[in-house]
Amino acid sequence: MSWLKILGAVIVGALLLTVGILLGHFAIPKGGNGRGAPSWVQTVGRDLNESLLQSFMDQVDSGKIRENLKALASQPHMATTKGDEELVKLLLSRWQDPQIGLDSASEDVYGVFLSFPDPQRPNSVAVGVCGSQIFSTRRSEKNVTADQAHADVVQPYAAYAPPGNPRGRLVYANQGKRSDYLELVNMGINLNGTVAITRYGGAGRANKAVNGAEFGVAGVVVYTDPADINDGRAFEEETYPNSWYLPPSGVERGSYSVYFGDLLTPYYPAKGNIGGAPIPTPSKEVWGGAETLTTPYISGSMSSSNLSGPVAPASWQGSLGCSYHVGPGFRTGGLFPNTSDVQVNVHNQRVIKNSSNVMGFIRGSEEPDRYVLYGNHRDSWVHGAIDPSSGTAVMLEITRVLGKMLKEGMRVWGVHRGATIPSEFYSKLRERSVAYINVDISVFANATLRAQGTPPAQSVIFAAAKQVPGSSMSVYDNWRNHFSRISPSYGVIPNLGSLGAGSDYASFIHYLGITSMDIAYTYDRNKTSARIYPAYHTAFDTFDYADRFIDPGFTSHQAVARTVGNVLLRLADSLILPLNVSDYGEKLDELYSAATQGDFLANLNANNLSLGPLKAAIGQFKSVAADFNQRIMKLKEEESPSPLQIRMVNDQIMLLERAFLNPQAFPNQYYYSHVIWASKSSDQATFPGLADAYTSALETGDWDQVRKHLTIVVQAVESAASTLEAMA
Amino acid sequence: MSWLKILGAVIVGALLLTVGILLGHFAIPKGGNGRGAPSWVQTVGRDLNESLLQSFMDQVDSGKIRENLKALASQPHMATTKGDEELVKLLLSRWQDPQIGLDSASEDVYGVFLSFPDPQRPNSVAVGVCGSQIFSTRRSEKNVTADQAHADVVQPYAAYAPPGNPRGRLVYANQGKRSDYLELVNMGINLNGTVAITRYGGAGRANKAVNGAEFGVAGVVVYTDPADINDGRAFEEETYPNSWYLPPSGVERGSYSVYFGDLLTPYYPAKGNIGGAPIPTPSKEVWGGAETLTTPYISGSMSSSNLSGPVAPASWQGSLGCSYHVGPGFRTGGLFPNTSDVQVNVHNQRVIKNSSNVMGFIRGSEEPDRYVLYGNHRDSWVHGAIDPSSGTAVMLEITRVLGKMLKEGMRVWGVHRGATIPSEFYSKLRERSVAYINVDISVFANATLRAQGTPPAQSVIFAAAKQVPGSSMSVYDNWRNHFSRISPSYGVIPNLGSLGAGSDYASFIHYLGITSMDIAYTYDRNKTSARIYPAYHTAFDTFDYADRFIDPGFTSHQAVARTVGNVLLRLADSLILPLNVSDYGEKLDELYSAATQGDFLANLNANNLSLGPLKAAIGQFKSVAADFNQRIMKLKEEESPSPLQIRMVNDQIMLLERAFLNPQAFPNQYYYSHVIWASKSSDQATFPGLADAYTSALETGDWDQVRKHLTIVVQAVESAASTLEAMA
Repeated sequence: MSWLKILGAVIVGALLLTVGILLGHFAIPKGGNGRGAPSWVQTVGRDLNESLLQSFMDQVDSGKIRENLKALASQPHMATTKGDEELVKLLLSRWQDPQIGLDSASEDVYGVFLSFPDPQRPNSVAVGVCGSQIFSTRRSEKNVTADQAHADVVQPYAAYAPPGNPRGRLVYANQGKRSDYLELVNMGINLNGTVAITRYGGAGRANKAVNGAEFGVAGVVVYTDPADINDGRAFEEETYPNSWYLPPSGVERGSYSVYFGDLLTPYYPAKGNIGGAPIPTPSKEVWGGAETLTTPYISGSMSSSNLSGPVAPASWQGSLGCSYHVGPGFRTGGLFPNTSDVQVNVHNQRVIKNSSNVMGFIRGSEEPDRYVLYGNHRDSWVHGAIDPSSGTAVMLEITRVLGKMLKEGMRVWGVHRGATIPSEFYSKLRERSVAYINVDISVFANATLRAQGTPPAQSVIFAAAKQVPGSSMSVYDNWRNHFSRISPSYGVIPNLGSLGAGSDYASFIHYLGITSMDIAYTYDRNKTSARIYPAYHTAFDTFDYADRFIDPGFTSHQAVARTVGNVLLRLADSLILPLNVSDYGEKLDELYSAATQGDFLANLNANNLSLGPLKAAIGQFKSVAADFNQRIMKLKEEESPSPLQIRMVNDQIMLLERAFLNPQAFPNQYYYSHVIWASKSSDQATFPGLADAYTSALETGDWDQVRKHLTIVVQAVESAASTLEAMA
Repeated sequence: MSWLKILGAVIVGALLLTVGILLGHFAIPKGGNGRGAPSWVQTVGRDLNESLLQSFMDQVDSGKIRENLKALASQPHMATTKGDEELVKLLLSRWQDPQIGLDSASEDVYGVFLSFPDPQRPNSVAVGVCGSQIFSTRRSEKNVTADQAHADVVQPYAAYAPPGNPRGRLVYANQGKRSDYLELVNMGINLNGTVAITRYGGAGRANKAVNGAEFGVAGVVVYTDPADINDGRAFEEETYPNSWYLPPSGVERGSYSVYFGDLLTPYYPAKGNIGGAPIPTPSKEVWGGAETLTTPYISGSMSSSNLSGPVAPASWQGSLGCSYHVGPGFRTGGLFPNTSDVQVNVHNQRVIKNSSNVMGFIRGSEEPDRYVLYGNHRDSWVHGAIDPSSGTAVMLEITRVLGKMLKEGMRVWGVHRGATIPSEFYSKLRERSVAYINVDISVFANATLRAQGTPPAQSVIFAAAKQVPGSSMSVYDNWRNHFSRISPSYGVIPNLGSLGAGSDYASFIHYLGITSMDIAYTYDRNKTSARIYPAYHTAFDTFDYADRFIDPGFTSHQAVARTVGNVLLRLADSLILPLNVSDYGEKLDELYSAATQGDFLANLNANNLSLGPLKAAIGQFKSVAADFNQRIMKLKEEESPSPLQIRMVNDQIMLLERAFLNPQAFPNQYYYSHVIWASKSSDQATFPGLADAYTSALETGDWDQVRKHLTIVVQAVESAASTLEAMA
């Protein structure tokens, strides 16, 4: 969840991920040991070895994860900086270690389009009257544990915000959602030429600026309100280093790019030298309409509580200890003269810099052409102890144990550790990848497992989580206690969340249609309502912070490592892939059901559209998936099934997710091709393309688009069903 | 090559093809017969059985192909007419026959967007003066063998031409190429509001109208000049039924749609009822700019030879026995008053009608999830003896012999006979298809084999053609005598042509990236320069015509059936797929080399673009492909290779073609995704996207597009190389 989630996972070809691909199976020969038969007869039928699973989990060491994290977060390691380059070496040395290394490891270099602040001209928000500046934001966080004074701490900035110096009266625009700006307009406020201050949350970073630009806003300032991240605590002594809360000087850095993926090379490898021509500068529109700055929450006091104009709506109020007004301009008698303008100074520089994708591989013994991918980005905004090094620390422990087991003779049948998606490998990854496991921030908090994924991932995550012990109950039971839902098929089960585009899995699921999952430990929502762990993307996200406040003892890191390693080994070594395809049926039913709620169906019918074909397609899918599972059951009962039969059903399982891809479905959204999971802006809880087309048709009357998206969904579901059908 | 080539193959989901899918291998167990081993150990390693190949070829019966053709062409069978529906029944009954049938056969119904003439108001070209009509084209061909008098002979028309009645002075525009219209303008002729008469050839049908519309032409008439199709013979007694030449009343019907694929449902199944909404009418632009009509060549006399204005350029002259002028308007003292206008009357009707895709299947015994596809469209314009029934007659003979062998105990390992591309099955076909074999017109003439395909198809076609006997030499040797090239790798070999988009393979290669080939017998170019066999798309394309003039004795039909069946069995039954991936290297070299010719490279360099990365990528591809072939050699030497190892290399071979797909490469061209084979309009002989971008940049200066297409090609070639790499 750093910008390299955006730059790495997403900027295809940016290769800032460290991903693992692993596909193996080992142990327990199943039947077919005829003497005189070729030797492979004894290995191709082997199924998962439970005792190796147990051995793996026993060896996962919380102390070693802590050591990993201490090393990884010892200094700032923003992408392409010295600290980051040192981590490249660290990863390579671990994975190439003769005692505990993997089969191989390598790095690939890409030229990535990045945005950095100008060290000579810091970004700032200044308040001035008649040309004289009377206030300017500070350059960075206050030094509280020495870490913040490190020379490589980058000043807070809104990466990819276009340079400029807009100046205008200040308005408070809540979270910068389109509806927030609209509400200001409805209050009679002329937004043209104003500078909007907005809180983090509610809308994506870049969208705060894009939305504002639509209403003529000239500059946008983004700050963190203690209401949103500190459970309301705003006094310095209540915050880090005395608690996990964010000190008043903390600023969330982040990417303000609208798209995921390298802005200059969408769909292509970030190798700018192809053809040799200079790389064009993307137009201002690419990353949003207004110059943007991110500021500490103390800067909030500069705004809402000191503004003139009407009192902001109740839901807009925060925790800065006073009533928030909306402006425009400062109030009389406040901190600043009421004639003061605010100036946003953005001096961001655009550069293309080299960065490496580090990949480690374990080669499969039986099916080296099937990959299990495991990944994370490497770079941070500052020290990045939690984001992303908590994930990398877990990855290194998993690979240490696997490497050790490999050296001790374990033989997997398809290991292949590596990689973000260097796009020259798109077609290879698309054809061969069984699943992608993402562990970015591995521990947001130490209360419970939290997993997201597409439906087939549910079965393997559940199986793993049931085997991992917690302090008083299994990781699975604890998870169900915190987040549960009632499944029509299974009763009360843990709730597997949906994947958005917020981490390194984005290209894997949205563009390549690879079954993906994201696994972490997270909050007890009875204890905190923080939007995210408070030090996120600030100079306070340090090893000390993680060690004392996020996961003392590193038991949650250990639980994540055990769960993820268990999932990974199950995917690599089960004779039949442990992904239950019929679980997609519940999701399809849920999305369909949402389309029959409220006015949706009535409006469709009024425009001669029917959900009948969609209902039929989903019914067909569920029926075919149930038959498919029956055939698997029979196959498992066979004494010695043919390896080609096994491969056939495994391919059907692997490729199911690909059947939902449609590269023509969302022509205006880079990378989004998955008909079930694409992003949407509509509030309708149904299939994304259908939801957006419907919401748009209510305004424009363009029901042809709704018809088109109905067709797209029906085709995708029929195609998915077709993939699972018995061979003619 | 009827409109259903356009409607069927291409109109995705139109399912007018009858395609075969077959994947099997049988015979000769190779090693691994250990006692006590599972039974599949004995079957998974079986390789192609040469004696079964021979048995298949021996059984192919030219007399039975003749009988098939007589039945298929007994009456007109334009798509969705009674004659066509009867062929659906014929195909199903053959493939479901208990003695010689396949494993199964079925039909799927689609609602296809079609264009028919109005029986009540025939299309015509009329000449009038002062409102009185003094001439009108005849309704159809002259009756010469009774076939032409059949009640179901459709009047000649330009399918999909928009209805209208434009009227204006006549001009002669040669072949209706853009350059032809431009030349008229350069002669000082104002084309605005004129009616252009054009010859078939040179430009696609629809393009004659699209190009004309750009210059203000109001209507377009298309006729066949005897120079182009009759080796100059224009007298009735020299033509059919006295020879194979086209009688003066013959008219080539055809589709004047710009795109391939159903115009209303690009990318989606032609099932208009999804969502239930009425299907929108495509805009006039979708199918071209001007009302268009196709006329007999006697109508040519109405035009060029009777026109006023300058004499047409030498290359524009035809064989109507007089000097062609360009107009505008008729000359003084000609057939028509020089004040006459010409009126084009188009009364085409647009309809959506149901039609069936008929599929036959042979199930594979070992790998039923791998398909070998074989197909053709079923419908004709009139009797369609040659187009397409000569192909269907061959298909029925191949399936008869295979069906008989099946009933006699032959067991293939993956048979699956069927289908155009119903688009609900896109993802399935894309993931599982080994190759697509197209036999549309099987015999244009009886002189020599002519094959087109992507490079990996070369090896399997050569292997088959070498085994098929001709009258004095093998089909292969005869082919090489007629069409040869010098290959850097192999010396003098037959020339495998490139696939365009002119037949039923279009979606398979361009959209799905399935290795495709098209096989037929064709002309001796020393004996005729006819653009195509003269009765093409006319009412003279009858069984009598085929039997007496195209292939007396049906030996060429037999040679095609033997070659195709041999290819099909090799693809179905070889342990390792007989597609030589390294043959792509020669094609890449050739396309690269074309980019270094003339000013191309200099202009690139002048704009800071380099071919270096492309050269490197092609070098890498060739090196990886050579290594790949080495590994296959080793694998073949192994006593008993693992079935998963075999499957791995077969998947690499199968998926190589997919690696060249890029759905973002040609956003404005429906379906075209294959970076090597996409259509281009530029004359540059290099990679199509690069060629078009280059030609465009010379005019517009937009070298960024050239850079983009360089990147696209480099990525595609790198991706292809990556697919063939040894597993890490």
